[in-house]
Amino acid sequence: MPRFALKIEYHGAPFAGWQRQSGQPSVQEAVEVALRRLEPEAPGIAAAGRTDAGVHATGQVAHCDLAKGWDPFRLAEALNWHLKPQPVAILAAARVADDFHARFSAIERRYLFRLIQRRAPVTHDRGLVWQVQNPLDLAAMQAGAAHLVGHHDFTTFRSTMCQAASPVKTLDEIAISAHPVPQGTEYRFTLRARSFLHNQVRSIVGTLERVGAGAWAPEDVRRALQAKNRAACGPVCPPQGLYLTGVGYPEDPFA
Amino acid sequence: MPRFALKIEYHGAPFAGWQRQSGQPSVQEAVEVALRRLEPEAPGIAAAGRTDAGVHATGQVAHCDLAKGWDPFRLAEALNWHLKPQPVAILAAARVADDFHARFSAIERRYLFRLIQRRAPVTHDRGLVWQVQNPLDLAAMQAGAAHLVGHHDFTTFRSTMCQAASPVKTLDEIAISAHPVPQGTEYRFTLRARSFLHNQVRSIVGTLERVGAGAWAPEDVRRALQAKNRAACGPVCPPQGLYLTGVGYPEDPFA
Repeated sequence: MPRFALKIEYHGAPFAGWQRQSGQPSVQEAVEVALRRLEPEAPGIAAAGRTDAGVHATGQVAHCDLAKGWDPFRLAEALNWHLKPQPVAILAAARVADDFHARFSAIERRYLFRLIQRRAPVTHDRGLVWQVQNPLDLAAMQAGAAHLVGHHDFTTFRSTMCQAASPVKTLDEIAISAHPVPQGTEYRFTLRARSFLHNQVRSIVGTLERVGAGAWAPEDVRRALQAKNRAACGPVCPPQGLYLTGVGYPEDPFA
Repeated sequence: MPRFALKIEYHGAPFAGWQRQSGQPSVQEAVEVALRRLEPEAPGIAAAGRTDAGVHATGQVAHCDLAKGWDPFRLAEALNWHLKPQPVAILAAARVADDFHARFSAIERRYLFRLIQRRAPVTHDRGLVWQVQNPLDLAAMQAGAAHLVGHHDFTTFRSTMCQAASPVKTLDEIAISAHPVPQGTEYRFTLRARSFLHNQVRSIVGTLERVGAGAWAPEDVRRALQAKNRAACGPVCPPQGLYLTGVGYPEDPFA
């Protein structure tokens, strides 16, 4: 059967996460139902990142096996037709080799976390950002983040439910930038790694927010990392500011 | 009674527009109801721009008269408390002179229109942008827009319901910029004038989109303007891409 890669964007709010689970709406099921409108026997699909409930994507990648040799553009258009009115969009489809696997072939994941600081409640960005009211110190958050870049045991920054075989990961980048919004500031955290542990990004951003607020010193992040103890982590921040923005492969299927 | 100016942000979707009307939710009524939680006898309020149903604001300005000499910061915080959970936020409050009038003292209005061009449906920006699927020519839209800047009779570009005494207005600026979004492009139209006619921005953007799509030549915009005839206008574009972003006064009340 021809294998296709799909680049998928979605709003996380209506879903219990990427992964199919009985009795709960999931992004995976939404895409599978659309695929079966095209080919009733289409098998289940696999994705690069199993995002949690409420987490968004602008560049999730999944692969699917179909019986027909679909034209990729027409496949994406047909899936978008059947996905309506759900907030899930196929940004691109591409024919890939039979041994391409959206999850196991991936060599990089990229995440964005949007944090807005201002007093007044957000209106247009509700459900799309995490809002805090206290002012944040950008330089302090950047100094705290620097302790996390590199090859480390991230036990402190992973969920106790995490099923990864090892807590040792290489975090290639954390960049934090500040952008003005009306009466406030949006902080954008971009993180890049081969793979992430469960809740790793939200644990890191929640901890760095405490640094920005002045409750933690930047050096406390290093101490928390070295503790290799989940209890040393700052608060895990909420999911609605998190976006899976891209997945890297040895060869870009959508190039 | 002390007079206050309020800078207001709102999501237009749940409202029939700014202006109070019986039996329909309006932004004006939402703010007035919140004010009356603070002072039951608070009179009605007036705003700089009476935005239509579905139109957003990030910098609407209204004024209100209150019995108490409220601290402006505490007034904004108290109103935001009572406005919850509606998507209306008071970004700032300021004490102003008794002769300040949000509408009649204004010397400039600024609008933003967000237009996204891509094949796949928008997800995160649903209700916040106008989406088209056909590619657009930025330079052609800019050339078309240039014909509209300056002092003109805008009869072609105003609603037949417009109540303004004269169709002659000075459009100080139309700038159009292009920004990449996943698999598409966002075009941002920023317009600036002392005042606008009813549906003027949506009539202009709807016409310029036709120029971008190649259905109109840039010069056709000049001909439409010179026709001084509503029937010569392009299609009026939908409201959900439009934002009132700011109002100018001889002295900024919020400086």
